[in-house]
Amino acid sequence: MPDLTSVVQEIAEEMRERPDRGEVATYIPELARADPKAFGLVVIDADGQVAAAGDSDVPFSIQSISKVFTLTLALGMVGDRLWRRVGREPSGSPFNSIVQLEYERGIPRNPFINAGAIAVTDLILSRHQPREALGEILRFMQFLAQDSSIAIDEAVAASELRTGFRNAALANFMKAHGVIDNPVEYTLGVYFHHCAIAMTCRQLAEAGRFLAHSGRNPSTGHLVVQPERARRINAVMLTCGHYDGSGEFAFRVGLPGKSGVGGGILAVAPGRASIAVWSPGLDASGNSHLGRIALERLTKRLGWSIFGQ
Amino acid sequence: MPDLTSVVQEIAEEMRERPDRGEVATYIPELARADPKAFGLVVIDADGQVAAAGDSDVPFSIQSISKVFTLTLALGMVGDRLWRRVGREPSGSPFNSIVQLEYERGIPRNPFINAGAIAVTDLILSRHQPREALGEILRFMQFLAQDSSIAIDEAVAASELRTGFRNAALANFMKAHGVIDNPVEYTLGVYFHHCAIAMTCRQLAEAGRFLAHSGRNPSTGHLVVQPERARRINAVMLTCGHYDGSGEFAFRVGLPGKSGVGGGILAVAPGRASIAVWSPGLDASGNSHLGRIALERLTKRLGWSIFGQ
Amino acid sequence: MPDLTSVVQEIAEEMRERPDRGEVATYIPELARADPKAFGLVVIDADGQVAAAGDSDVPFSIQSISKVFTLTLALGMVGDRLWRRVGREPSGSPFNSIVQLEYERGIPRNPFINAGAIAVTDLILSRHQPREALGEILRFMQFLAQDSSIAIDEAVAASELRTGFRNAALANFMKAHGVIDNPVEYTLGVYFHHCAIAMTCRQLAEAGRFLAHSGRNPSTGHLVVQPERARRINAVMLTCGHYDGSGEFAFRVGLPGKSGVGGGILAVAPGRASIAVWSPGLDASGNSHLGRIALERLTKRLGWSIFGQ
Amino acid sequence: MPDLTSVVQEIAEEMRERPDRGEVATYIPELARADPKAFGLVVIDADGQVAAAGDSDVPFSIQSISKVFTLTLALGMVGDRLWRRVGREPSGSPFNSIVQLEYERGIPRNPFINAGAIAVTDLILSRHQPREALGEILRFMQFLAQDSSIAIDEAVAASELRTGFRNAALANFMKAHGVIDNPVEYTLGVYFHHCAIAMTCRQLAEAGRFLAHSGRNPSTGHLVVQPERARRINAVMLTCGHYDGSGEFAFRVGLPGKSGVGGGILAVAPGRASIAVWSPGLDASGNSHLGRIALERLTKRLGWSIFGQ
Repeated sequence: MPDLTSVVQEIAEEMRERPDRGEVATYIPELARADPKAFGLVVIDADGQVAAAGDSDVPFSIQSISKVFTLTLALGMVGDRLWRRVGREPSGSPFNSIVQLEYERGIPRNPFINAGAIAVTDLILSRHQPREALGEILRFMQFLAQDSSIAIDEAVAASELRTGFRNAALANFMKAHGVIDNPVEYTLGVYFHHCAIAMTCRQLAEAGRFLAHSGRNPSTGHLVVQPERARRINAVMLTCGHYDGSGEFAFRVGLPGKSGVGGGILAVAPGRASIAVWSPGLDASGNSHLGRIALERLTKRLGWSIFGQ
Repeated sequence: MPDLTSVVQEIAEEMRERPDRGEVATYIPELARADPKAFGLVVIDADGQVAAAGDSDVPFSIQSISKVFTLTLALGMVGDRLWRRVGREPSGSPFNSIVQLEYERGIPRNPFINAGAIAVTDLILSRHQPREALGEILRFMQFLAQDSSIAIDEAVAASELRTGFRNAALANFMKAHGVIDNPVEYTLGVYFHHCAIAMTCRQLAEAGRFLAHSGRNPSTGHLVVQPERARRINAVMLTCGHYDGSGEFAFRVGLPGKSGVGGGILAVAPGRASIAVWSPGLDASGNSHLGRIALERLTKRLGWSIFGQ
Repeated sequence: MPDLTSVVQEIAEEMRERPDRGEVATYIPELARADPKAFGLVVIDADGQVAAAGDSDVPFSIQSISKVFTLTLALGMVGDRLWRRVGREPSGSPFNSIVQLEYERGIPRNPFINAGAIAVTDLILSRHQPREALGEILRFMQFLAQDSSIAIDEAVAASELRTGFRNAALANFMKAHGVIDNPVEYTLGVYFHHCAIAMTCRQLAEAGRFLAHSGRNPSTGHLVVQPERARRINAVMLTCGHYDGSGEFAFRVGLPGKSGVGGGILAVAPGRASIAVWSPGLDASGNSHLGRIALERLTKRLGWSIFGQ
Repeated sequence: MPDLTSVVQEIAEEMRERPDRGEVATYIPELARADPKAFGLVVIDADGQVAAAGDSDVPFSIQSISKVFTLTLALGMVGDRLWRRVGREPSGSPFNSIVQLEYERGIPRNPFINAGAIAVTDLILSRHQPREALGEILRFMQFLAQDSSIAIDEAVAASELRTGFRNAALANFMKAHGVIDNPVEYTLGVYFHHCAIAMTCRQLAEAGRFLAHSGRNPSTGHLVVQPERARRINAVMLTCGHYDGSGEFAFRVGLPGKSGVGGGILAVAPGRASIAVWSPGLDASGNSHLGRIALERLTKRLGWSIFGQ
């Protein structure tokens, strides 16, 4: 077995030199400022050993990666009743498609497409006022990452509030079908804000550790969710975590993961490690181009694919 | 860790008593004759130890499970060029949908929906005459299962040839887009025949062992495919193996698997075991109702989910 | 040729007695109060002779019939540039479908489905402040109907503002594609208000006369639009005026027409007459059930179909 | 009113000089041989006066125009029961789309898209052996056109039989839904052959006269269909006669019409005339480019639009 730290260093160097870096997302104006040369990679193993390389301490907008954590939080609040509002099948469509919603009466396919994550946010909001709901989500991230400095990037949230018409279309469409309970602007407000949480690779890898270890952070001993729930969240990440590129990610990387248009990916090697990678350039499916390549090399060199040695 | 044999026996008994048995498929008339009370389960571990229960030696029509093996065979023939003809993303649609084909210029989403498997069959046929192609597929199954008695159920093949209009629509549609090279009736003939292969749970579990063990049958030592290819086939099974119920299967069972409308499911626990289950009654997504429940219990009791303990 | 007045009386009586009256629309709560027994019919011929029967002077919510007039107004403002924002093909879909918008990059199929009418309203709004735009639309209706008492039913407008989430989804979706220029809430506000204009059959038939007579009201002599434009608006009404029931209306009635969910229909017999009918109960396609039947009988008895004697 | 003969001559000359001639269809190889410079126009008025210009006596493949006549024939055989198998709404889709069939359980939207015409052909075939059915269709065309020399172009029929995979997909899909009664190859064989009938503009205009004159050829006095049926066929032509360009044709030309990919268009001016035009180059919707422009000029100059003067 190769040494974890050297594999991580090696891959970061390989990535640094590549000319192909994907395209930085421009549809949220604030995200377009990201440096396409940035690359960070952090792996935290079962013992808590951290292997980090590149821009591992630069905060970036986690965007859709937040959907994993809002799903976890909402499942804790309402349990499996959540699945009456949101499915758990791959959508076979881009992240922001509305076609599926019309054919399936406003029930989003899964919690990791935008519509599904908005519906999950709405469930959290049903227990709280908007400001409190957002506070709860942020505190949950700080707790998981063991870092109270994690904050929302208000410029990104404001940018998306001004331009998020497609998400407003999705939310209004679900509202018309009774899948959203709260006023659309409240639900969208909380949604845009939790997508705008900024984290570093280090913080993100730490926050994802409970998913790699049967629901418990092995260092703190905190039980976040029951083992079965952790497995199931991992399963949904594997089948649905990369929009219309989920099959490709499973095929190449072989780990449950969730990407965001900010260029981050959280990946989980069950029993082994929590992994966060960041590079702002995206591929055609909206997933980090170098992030995915880095993870493919990592699992191959370490033999970590869940699909076999 | 509970004893494998007793877990298998236990589950078979639990299944025997359940009143809910799903609905036997009727769209291929010959399949409608299957006994809804039948249930078989076989697990073969890395050491070659066989745990069997129920109707483990009764042959049934493997139907779409054959798609795993024709994919393996075709990848061996044409390599990764295969992926120019067939995608590897979940379809988000039922097994026989034609809508996706129109939107995506005749390229099927993945090799496990009908259209994709027909395109794969056509690739095999491009190297052979129809009769030889079918012979090659059958011999491959006999070789994998180490059992030369495996045969095609001609009555099932004839039944589907008479009624398979929807598959003929898919094949003609792909032919119109240049995705099928051979005469449609040849390709469909070979496709219907390999779906009509009859196997027992014991034979099927044996045939699937290379997928559980990095491409090699650990008892015979035969290398069927390279390790990476085995992992990738497993990945496609996980994301696409159960049509529009693939997410649900991953969520509940947590293993790569492939179902057939004959009521069989082949599942793979990487590094651990190859598993075959059979019960003819299907759920709404066309997957074996009790087969899925049995696998869910098996992975839970043995801690075999690929998504964590 | 039978006498116009007696044909109109006759049909009104036949309709009064029918037990099948369709279903009053409930999705806008305020509309649900309409009396399912109401029925009004007014025909105004080329000489200005008025044949009226039933509830011909009871105001009702014209709803989507307003789309004919906002289209006329917008064409007068921006000319054929309007067709860059809106198509003129039948949609093959229900009035509020969003699927087509996704496949066609936010360009609505025609100006008579909701999305198309919202885009047309947005064009009017680009020349005016919201309050003025609405005033202009209302004054245009008063001018056409020669009746300054025509007003907006504020309760209906408010009811739709509170519940029109599906229209908000359409508007936001088009905004995301750059098809809507103004703030979504302004455009929707004007749209909901012009749909809430209340008119009687008599007023509506008068307002539609320019369409029957080459763009000119033959009594006042006012030229509203050029003859070619009048013909073209009639053509769009024929192919697209009844949502997914447009083919059926052409097949049975044989006249250009536009229906509204308030139960009104405006129909045009070119060169002959302008016709308004009202009965609140709707058929499965959302068009007035008795209104359509009454028009079918009218054109048959008078030989007015544009498709031949 | 301008003189009919001089208008027809004038338009033919204008068309002769235009450089934009559309694209000759290539998907049926045999059709690709047509001369893009060809242009013919024939108008036969109520008195039987014939105005002809250009290549009015050159036979061309009528292709989908035959659908008008098979619809007429099938309605005569089975009456309005036909509408249980085929709808009469515009499809909002290209001529050969299969998506709509899947969403609507194999029932084609209207008799003028390929699927609908295949279903209509199948109804005719249910009364006859294939050879007789084809003979009946051909004799019906000869009778209507008063010309027994009309024949099938066997080279075109053979060409389409070899390449018509998309139509085979449509037919098999309908067969799977029970919408096709006869063996698919019989139905397709008759369909491809009636599409391959070759006619001149003169023959076609003569054959369409019953549609312009309440179901009766005013010269022969033959009643082909009842007046109401003639009106209804005209209505379906107007809303569905030009595939996804039907709205555009109604908007610009203002007459019921049916186009074929051979470049012909039959148009009907109710009470006035039957019109046939031919020019092989097609526009993006698959309709004759110059044919449509010629008809637009004709109706404008003669004031023949059904939507008003």
